Order: sequence, then C-alpha cells, then structure tokens
Amino acid sequence: MEISVLPTTGHIDRSSLVQRVVIILDILRSTTCIVTALANGCRGVIPALNCDEALLIARGLENGSYLLAGENRGQKIKDFHLGNSPHFYRQDQLRKKYIIMATTNGTRAIVRSAGARKVLIGSFLNAGMVCQYAARLNNKITIACAGTQGKFSLEDAVAAGMLIDCLKNYYPGSRLTDLALAAKTLYHHHKKNLLIPLLVSQNGRSLKEQRLLNDIHFAQQLNIYPIVPVYEGGVIKQADLHRP
Amino acid sequence: MEISVLPTTGHIDRSSLVQRVVIILDILRSTTCIVTALANGCRGVIPALNCDEALLIARGLENGSYLLAGENRGQKIKDFHLGNSPHFYRQDQLRKKYIIMATTNGTRAIVRSAGARKVLIGSFLNAGMVCQYAARLNNKITIACAGTQGKFSLEDAVAAGMLIDCLKNYYPGSRLTDLALAAKTLYHHHKKNLLIPLLVSQNGRSLKEQRLLNDIHFAQQLNIYPIVPVYEGGVIKQADLHRP
Repeated sequence: MEISVLPTTGHIDRSSLVQRVVIILDILRSTTCIVTALANGCRGVIPALNCDEALLIARGLENGSYLLAGENRGQKIKDFHLGNSPHFYRQDQLRKKYIIMATTNGTRAIVRSAGARKVLIGSFLNAGMVCQYAARLNNKITIACAGTQGKFSLEDAVAAGMLIDCLKNYYPGSRLTDLALAAKTLYHHHKKNLLIPLLVSQNGRSLKEQRLLNDIHFAQQLNIYPIVPVYEGGVIKQADLHRP
Repeated sequence: MEISVLPTTGHIDRSSLVQRVVIILDILRSTTCIVTALANGCRGVIPALNCDEALLIARGLENGSYLLAGENRGQKIKDFHLGNSPHFYRQDQLRKKYIIMATTNGTRAIVRSAGARKVLIGSFLNAGMVCQYAARLNNKITIACAGTQGKFSLEDAVAAGMLIDCLKNYYPGSRLTDLALAAKTLYHHHKKNLLIPLLVSQNGRSLKEQRLLNDIHFAQQLNIYPIVPVYEGGVIKQADLHRP
C-alpha cells in the first residue's frame, strides 16, 4: 500500500490519479460543509469550479430541487442561498435537495480529481469511516489537501496525518511519501488538542477575525458523522456502506 | 518580521520575492555541496539551469579557471569534473577555481530566486551563521526549499524548521505562514536526531540504495562551516561577515 499527500489543489493532476483512491480534504471549510450537508439529509452535492459554472449547472435542474451554495475568497456569493459556514448545512430546508456548491479551493479540488478510481470526501467529522471505506478498496491512496489559494494549509495537513495514522491500522507496512511522513508527524504533535492547529492556521485566524470561531470548533469534531461521501457522475452522494 | 516557506522550486516566483531575503535549501545535496565548496577555498559557484547552460557558461570563462559539476536525476553528468556528492567539494583541486554547477532542483531554485533583495545559500552545515546574517538584514524572509522534482522533501522542511527556530531568537514575534509553522513543528519533533528524517526521506532512501550513506551523515552536521554564501551577479560567493 502506498499513501501520498498533495499539498494544494494545483498539485492535483488527473493523469497521476488513475487507479488511485483520492480523499479530498478542505477542513476550513468546504469538505466539512459537504459532509454535514449529506449527514443532514441533502440529496447530493454538485461541486462547481466557480459561481458561473454553478449557475449553468442550476439551469439544467428543476426549479425548487436545488440550493446554490459557496463562497468566493471566503465571502458568501451574492444571491446564493447558502455560504460556506457549516451551520448553513444543518438546516431543514436542504433535506432532499441538491446543493450546487462553488468554492475557491475545495470544490475545485474535487472536480480536478475526477478520473481517479474513487473520489471520497473527508473531514474530521467522518475521518474514521472514510479510512475504513478507503482501506476496503485496497488501492493506492492519495490524500489531496485543497490548501488555500495555492498555498499549503496546516489544518488540511494535520487532518491528512490523522487519516494516514488511521490507514496504517489497516496496512501496517504502508509506504509513505515525504509529505505523508510530515503530515503524520504534524498529526502526532497536535492530536491531544486538534483545535490548536486550526486556530493558528491562516484560515483559522481569518475566521477568528470574522467572528466565526464556531465554525472552527465545529470542524474539529471527530467522527460525529459516520458517512462516506463519494463523487461519482458529477454528484457527491453517500456511499452505501453495506455494499462491498 | 514575516517568515514564509516555499515547498518546491516550482513555487519560487520572482515577483513575490522583491524586497525579501531568500534562503535556498537543498539539503540532499546541492546547497550542502555549495557551502562545502566555498568553505574549502573555491572562488565562486555559478549555478546553471541544466547541463547545456553549464557548458555555455563555461565557454565564457578562461580554460583551467573552472570545473564543471552537477547531476541529472541524481547521476553525475558525463564528462563533468564533479558530481553532486559533498566529498567532491573538499578536494584541493577546486581551490581558487570557479565551479559551474547544474542540478535538477537546487541550482534551479537559486537561479529562479534572482530578483530578491538577497539570496543566501543554507544547509545544516552553516545554519546558525545564515540566520545571524539574514536577521541583520531586517527584511521579510522566504525560505525556499528546492524539493525533489516538484515534490516536497522532508529533509528540506526540517532544515527550514531549524532556521525558523533560530530566526525566532532574533525576532520573537515573527509571523509564520502555515508551512513555516509546520516546518517548525517537524524540526522540533526531529531535533534530537536529525539523521532520522534524512534517512527516511525519499532522497535519503535513494542515497542509501546507492550506498551513499556518507553523504547523509555529512549533510546533517550542524554549523561546521560558519560561512554565508550569497548569490549576486550570477555567482555565489562568501559574504563578507565583517561588513554591515
């Protein structure tokens, strides 16, 4: 078993993902939001590259069947229904609806990963279940951190380290790339208090300035949603955990 | 004071380096070799992007005044005088000569950094002196890890963490980017035995396979050469440490 880690969306290269399982992480905040939405009854999340593409996708869907969501450089998009704060995704209004989501880093990372054997959406909220599912697929694994506008994000790297730590229970002799080794060390350093790397990270400090500390506290909860979102045929849906 | 870290040569973007001090790291092995060469009496190192450029540069120099050095994908270049192993750079034959050096990662990182306020060459061998010199310049600092063929290298990140740890003695309130925070954590984790990250890294494993363990042991020595190589006007020379 080989496990590699990519530091940013820009490093995701479809050609190198063939026959690999990819786990996308954008802890603050889009993969945290996607997991929350699906755990709260949303029918599926359709990731878009940007807000124009989200509007184009919406045209193909029945009115009332979807909500538009996302952010542009951290801010809610004008006239969209939902922003990029996880609290939007625990509301009754999204039950049985599609969410079309455009974000600066996370949804782009997902779209760029199409072509992999499986694309899974990870977060602290569903880490254990994603690892269990990924391990069962028995392929090489790439953990793709979305990062922030082309730069490494500490919170994504620490989450990657947690996944690696968990995956090594299934495959004790895994080969790790240098960034995978580094992520594992970062996780071990921070595992007693996962809040700290989230608070000191660039994204964390920016959310704090915007008085969105609740988003950080929400994002660092471990395994509260035992689901595995899978991106397939353009839509992210919950995997059926009872099927092999 | 702001300190940032770039993970690979590809991330070095001249436009964002204006008015910044850049410290280049390619621990295994080119910056380790450059520091060793200058500490052993070499007149100057001229970095080249590749072996063709090295040959072109050589045409402009007097016969007998230079040696050609470097590697292509880890291997010594045919007909060049020196490879990329530090032991080449402790020989009497390089005294008072220029070395024209082409490597896959390190010399490219140096050439790409031209345009910064100062470009310094770092390694474990001269870490303390480079930090002291960089701190005196009182500019924002970018530590540019060369990485390995576009990928993050553990040994460069740990060395970056050591420099950050040292720089914080001069500027206790420094602002660190996420990768700088991560590098500092990696250094703290490994500082009791710096050999370990070098041995488990991809480059370290590859050198071990080539029976070049001596190169790894050599590269992890701390502060054996109290010099500061500076890249200026196309040539790397020792900074005059007595001038302000």
